[in-house]
Amino acid sequence: MRAEVLAVGTELVLGDVVDTNSAWIARRLAGAGVDSHFQTKVGDNVERIEAALRTALARSDAVVVCGGLGPTPDDVTREALARVMDVAMVRDDEVLERIRRRFEERGRPMPPSNERQAEVPEGAVVIEQRRGTAPGLICPLGDQVVYAVPGVPHEMSEMVDRAVVPDLEQRRGGRAVIASRVVRTWGEDESALAERLAPRIEALDRSPNPTLAFLASGMEGIKVRITAKAATAAEADALLDAEEAELRAILGRRVLGVDEETMESVLAALLGDAGLTLGLAESMTGGLIAARCSEAPGSSAWFRGGVVSYASEVKFDLLGVPEGPVVSERAAAAMASGARRCVGADVGLSVTGVAGPQTQDGMPVGTVFVGVALGDDVGTTQLRLGGDRTAIRRTASSAALDELRQRLLDHAG
Amino acid sequence: MRAEVLAVGTELVLGDVVDTNSAWIARRLAGAGVDSHFQTKVGDNVERIEAALRTALARSDAVVVCGGLGPTPDDVTREALARVMDVAMVRDDEVLERIRRRFEERGRPMPPSNERQAEVPEGAVVIEQRRGTAPGLICPLGDQVVYAVPGVPHEMSEMVDRAVVPDLEQRRGGRAVIASRVVRTWGEDESALAERLAPRIEALDRSPNPTLAFLASGMEGIKVRITAKAATAAEADALLDAEEAELRAILGRRVLGVDEETMESVLAALLGDAGLTLGLAESMTGGLIAARCSEAPGSSAWFRGGVVSYASEVKFDLLGVPEGPVVSERAAAAMASGARRCVGADVGLSVTGVAGPQTQDGMPVGTVFVGVALGDDVGTTQLRLGGDRTAIRRTASSAALDELRQRLLDHAG
Repeated sequence: MRAEVLAVGTELVLGDVVDTNSAWIARRLAGAGVDSHFQTKVGDNVERIEAALRTALARSDAVVVCGGLGPTPDDVTREALARVMDVAMVRDDEVLERIRRRFEERGRPMPPSNERQAEVPEGAVVIEQRRGTAPGLICPLGDQVVYAVPGVPHEMSEMVDRAVVPDLEQRRGGRAVIASRVVRTWGEDESALAERLAPRIEALDRSPNPTLAFLASGMEGIKVRITAKAATAAEADALLDAEEAELRAILGRRVLGVDEETMESVLAALLGDAGLTLGLAESMTGGLIAARCSEAPGSSAWFRGGVVSYASEVKFDLLGVPEGPVVSERAAAAMASGARRCVGADVGLSVTGVAGPQTQDGMPVGTVFVGVALGDDVGTTQLRLGGDRTAIRRTASSAALDELRQRLLDHAG
Repeated sequence: MRAEVLAVGTELVLGDVVDTNSAWIARRLAGAGVDSHFQTKVGDNVERIEAALRTALARSDAVVVCGGLGPTPDDVTREALARVMDVAMVRDDEVLERIRRRFEERGRPMPPSNERQAEVPEGAVVIEQRRGTAPGLICPLGDQVVYAVPGVPHEMSEMVDRAVVPDLEQRRGGRAVIASRVVRTWGEDESALAERLAPRIEALDRSPNPTLAFLASGMEGIKVRITAKAATAAEADALLDAEEAELRAILGRRVLGVDEETMESVLAALLGDAGLTLGLAESMTGGLIAARCSEAPGSSAWFRGGVVSYASEVKFDLLGVPEGPVVSERAAAAMASGARRCVGADVGLSVTGVAGPQTQDGMPVGTVFVGVALGDDVGTTQLRLGGDRTAIRRTASSAALDELRQRLLDHAG
């Protein structure tokens, strides 16, 4: 079964907004065992949405349309759907009532423009709106189907999981399952990883199930995606398990986790298991590592906080870094100890370096020192990173967290 | 003239990677006065890339293909282009020589697989590769043209600006210019802003040039895009200038800037003009504000650093917050003063609140207190934000920065 995503919005084709919805929906499609070969974006124009829908329906069994369901006159996805279905628009009173209630809850009268959101193509099944005012739609077209969901991410995601994926899975029925797993690595670039895995890739080329693919993912490292096809989800999972074990045997600690396991979640588990708390001292990363550590719910169990010592004096005065060059091993070590002391944490992690565009302390752009204070030991590592300022800062944040991961693994024995 | 972007990569259609390249290229197309009505993504499959190219060429004058130019066997954009052009592949020795040199500079021999990158469709003009190993291509197809650029963002962007945009502009010749400007606002939601602008929108509806469109952009606020069509760039600019002035008159300080002006860049200018430096104390935002402040080159001129006081003890011990509830006006005020003192800054900005998912100190999720210490004054503001944990943290970071902006504007004048 094939499905594809059509994202609607002039802001998308003009490039004013980066579309994250399509990738999110595509992951859900893959998870439901549905192939997805194309994605399209189109502006808020009824003729062009209609044309894009027809193109998509010529090559896929199902289309998920995202956006263009709002109350303003430029929201014309409903009209385009009615054209493709060749039906009239009808008012759905239940939908209208829910919109009215949504406004009442906010203590505001419903603006007349929102009435448009209760107009649906005849024959479409409404997906009740629970978060925003726009309902979703399931539009049958013979054997094919078009789903329409709002463009607001948290409305879209709730609706896709509640109504679109279950409907698709039912339609998919007993067809072959495609499952994939992402093995996340850090520490080697794509070509080095490819060389290391070359014998395994050659072996798989002779019987390509599962298959491997590399995804360079910036500060998330290099991902290796395993994709398996099988008659059932359980059989596909068994193939993925076996291949994951193969990759872990070859790559060792370069593997930081799989799928939803991130550098942060892995560190949370390692620190949690060891009963340790973390403090940070960040210079060139300027708060990026702290922001990543504090993103997950529950991070207060292990993350104490940190000092963003952007100015050198903050390093000297608050963190106790000795006077001298601040892009140095010595400064990184003192920062890691200072971080631990300042926020009362068990483990201190520090980063100092040159993000650019100018050199600093005679050190070239991309020079980074990482410090880890753990137990009686304060270790430092020097790195040399490439890319522009943004890339260097992001990569440094991951490299520092990985350094901490390696030390915690050593520590755990 | 119409152009569209085709992004190639199985990781894109599987949703493993969010494509930011297409939006970036689309903005450049709009800037070059080229209409862009569609965007497509397709996996690494030569037949499907060919099909997507043909679909795009049936509705546009130019296509920018992004990705699939790497050295591995799944990089097949070159082959798909040769099929659409109906030509053979030929080796380009200059391209090969540049690839070899690139590896020499890194002190590594060129892997044999990279030779593939020197194969180009006959009749294509090579865009010299300056950052990575993949060259770009300009492929003429009668009156139409396909550009191919690498998928690595910093390689892509350099090549689009150096070779693709100038070539497109030349082809565009004397056709009408479409120019747009984004007016960035903070402080009101989309519907409140729409109500405020309703008379202006009605006036424009009667002669729709320029036109206005709203873009809800999360932590970047609500953007109002002005789009103008004219015979020359200068005339289009004049229309944009006049409309920007209209909007500023209606929206006042809710306008934080236009186009590339961000909350951070506006604050950098305000602080720079006043000769003031900034220190932060972040609790629920956990480093997000610091990361934003330190992102721009040159931020060390006004950003001193900050304390991420995630644990309550860090607030008490390091920032001097009095014992008691830490989600409170009193704590926010003490944090702002503490931030200033800790990092030796002129202005202190603080955020404390409940990002969720659990309530804290009896305060509901979404409660946020912002503190600004400026001169002898320490002001605080209470906010109530909606959304999930990630959205609350991001919105809080922008709301805090906007609070600082408003106080700096008061201070200046």
